[in-house]
Amino acid sequence: MPTIDPDRVMGDLKRLAEFGKYKTGVHRPTYSEDDMAARHWFAGRMADAGLEPEIDGIGNVIGRGKGNGPCILTGSHIESQNYGGWLDGSLGMVYGLEAARAISADPEFAGAVVDVGAWADEEGHFGILMGSRSFCGEVTEEEIDKAADPTRGGLKMRDALAKAGLAGRPRRQYEPNRYIAYLEAHIEQGDWLEANDLRLGIVTSIVGIWQYRVTFEGVQNHAGTTRMAIRKDAGLALTKLCCEIDRVFPEVAGPRSVWTTGRITLFPGAPSIIPGQAEMLFQIRDADVAVLERMEKKLFELVAASDAAGPCRAKVEVLRKSTPAMMDERVQAALEAAAERHAPGKHTRMPSGAGHDAQNFARHMPAGMLFVPSIGGISHHWDENTKEEDIILGAQVFTDAVAELLRSAR
Amino acid sequence: MPTIDPDRVMGDLKRLAEFGKYKTGVHRPTYSEDDMAARHWFAGRMADAGLEPEIDGIGNVIGRGKGNGPCILTGSHIESQNYGGWLDGSLGMVYGLEAARAISADPEFAGAVVDVGAWADEEGHFGILMGSRSFCGEVTEEEIDKAADPTRGGLKMRDALAKAGLAGRPRRQYEPNRYIAYLEAHIEQGDWLEANDLRLGIVTSIVGIWQYRVTFEGVQNHAGTTRMAIRKDAGLALTKLCCEIDRVFPEVAGPRSVWTTGRITLFPGAPSIIPGQAEMLFQIRDADVAVLERMEKKLFELVAASDAAGPCRAKVEVLRKSTPAMMDERVQAALEAAAERHAPGKHTRMPSGAGHDAQNFARHMPAGMLFVPSIGGISHHWDENTKEEDIILGAQVFTDAVAELLRSAR
Repeated sequence: MPTIDPDRVMGDLKRLAEFGKYKTGVHRPTYSEDDMAARHWFAGRMADAGLEPEIDGIGNVIGRGKGNGPCILTGSHIESQNYGGWLDGSLGMVYGLEAARAISADPEFAGAVVDVGAWADEEGHFGILMGSRSFCGEVTEEEIDKAADPTRGGLKMRDALAKAGLAGRPRRQYEPNRYIAYLEAHIEQGDWLEANDLRLGIVTSIVGIWQYRVTFEGVQNHAGTTRMAIRKDAGLALTKLCCEIDRVFPEVAGPRSVWTTGRITLFPGAPSIIPGQAEMLFQIRDADVAVLERMEKKLFELVAASDAAGPCRAKVEVLRKSTPAMMDERVQAALEAAAERHAPGKHTRMPSGAGHDAQNFARHMPAGMLFVPSIGGISHHWDENTKEEDIILGAQVFTDAVAELLRSAR
Repeated sequence: MPTIDPDRVMGDLKRLAEFGKYKTGVHRPTYSEDDMAARHWFAGRMADAGLEPEIDGIGNVIGRGKGNGPCILTGSHIESQNYGGWLDGSLGMVYGLEAARAISADPEFAGAVVDVGAWADEEGHFGILMGSRSFCGEVTEEEIDKAADPTRGGLKMRDALAKAGLAGRPRRQYEPNRYIAYLEAHIEQGDWLEANDLRLGIVTSIVGIWQYRVTFEGVQNHAGTTRMAIRKDAGLALTKLCCEIDRVFPEVAGPRSVWTTGRITLFPGAPSIIPGQAEMLFQIRDADVAVLERMEKKLFELVAASDAAGPCRAKVEVLRKSTPAMMDERVQAALEAAAERHAPGKHTRMPSGAGHDAQNFARHMPAGMLFVPSIGGISHHWDENTKEEDIILGAQVFTDAVAELLRSAR
């Protein structure tokens, strides 16, 4: 079996963490100077590994291997969340690169190929998983024309691409029939593995994310002179809906469902004015469409009940609905066999509560994902971390699974 | 009795509404060009009426009458809320000026004096009722140094005063023993008069406004990967407190108490992140300190209960506590007698739910206020309005009451 080099894995991860270093994490928004420097450095590491690297017109860094044997695509992302962690994305990139290096160094696998891709903007600074969708042929030029980053003053994606030196470059798409599978590794970002004393997660599916805006229309008025009896306080109506959701959602949710109100805005938002309008962003996630549908139905019922009860009007609109993606059974079996070999009894099959590029590839080829534990379940924060022994274990298990799939395809 | 000139009252009000005209209202933030133009125009109208006008170092427009008889101070404000109504402040200014004009024209009142003051920044662009507090000797230079307008990019009050040409001018204070009373007229800003088919309100007291910030500390985490069971969602804890307040406050509140959550902020406020912190601005108003204390005690209990129940920490801090101000009984009686004379049975005594400059003067001299109805109770909005017949009725009743107090002081 191909064997990974732990020092090389840790060395590459630590080097990558220097680009945009922020506290114990990194700040590498997509196409920022630090992000582009990291992409160019990674392309160099691909070339060192014998891959042919290219940064395409959307910033995907694609390293193609040489050989006429079976080929597997691996990948993850290089940019980070704003002020995020050092492993989110980087871990999957280095695992893919290490698998390519270990397999090309193993004479048993002569001719077999591991391609590595860094999918631009997985973190969603400009849109939703645009790099991998572009590589799958699912992004139009118009979508790029319209995309902008709200956290950088509405920076247009086109302007960011031009500043990064990528304007005018062709966007690459995958060659049909080149790949037997897509494999991606990632930190879990939750605490399931840690809480259950496990070291590896084999992803069964990636949850669907359904997102809504609920708006309440009341009457804005003076908070001193308007009697309680005649108020139409949109903020109060909103908080009541939140409490109702908290009360009844457990009845319709599945065991792994999550629901979140991430933003609340009252208008005009002044201490002496009764809010005339209020708005909340609400999101549900589950791997099972039937469960998502049950939760959505309940949300619609609660909003309709709020509207009917008055005194404010309430309405809900759908902002986003991604379909849960099922991971391929053969890929799961290969990951599980490798996990059992290196960490017997210390692995589990589990859904991914977060979105990943693998959900796009799953529509085009057999896809699978491997998770390693997140210490304390912390994610999207510079405190995010994983034990070094788990990082190294994961790299070997990932490489084993890639090798097993290549072997069985001969 | 001195008689007002309805055309002069309406003419002055309509002329004043041209300064900073916005839709059917006005936009005259304190010390803005439109506000200063209105102040200078009003000073001119004071001079036309035989008063000696001066704009002092805080922008108060003070018109002093001549004479050795008893003297009454009247006033209100000239600046408006951002994009506010045409009568809020202006009505009281024109009533005061008209009372001065009508009384000086009446030979019976030879020697009696009506002073008129426009108290700067009653609307609180830079602070809380600073113009009238300055005239009462309660504002330090340091308070002015620190004041800024958050809605104009943190514009410093000092810079605004300098740009308005007021830097270096002395701030005037009232002459001890000059005034037998302070009288102020205002639109009601609520719907109590209209809803009860009344045309005049005699203010008994001005409510105390007690304001709080309640903060919740949870744990920020990924909205996809963090199980419901281990979440510490600060936003959810906040909405539950809002629902509890709504449920139990009627038990401790008085019949005219009001309570308002005007602003809610979740941090970081992203759809895919569980809020790790949440904050709300909460305000209570009542004319009775005992009722305010009951409501405050209940708020503190609810926050402590939220904190004790977990999973988030909750704490409350006091931001502001103004004492309710009682209006003088003799002034109320004079207003009531005048109201009964011109609109029998169509007036009531009532507390003011909004703050007014009269609450400051009440600490220094007998003070009183007269309300006229607000159509639909609308206030702090360009749709604010009052029927012309009510405006004219109010002006006569106000002048009658001023005259009666002057007569009885001879």
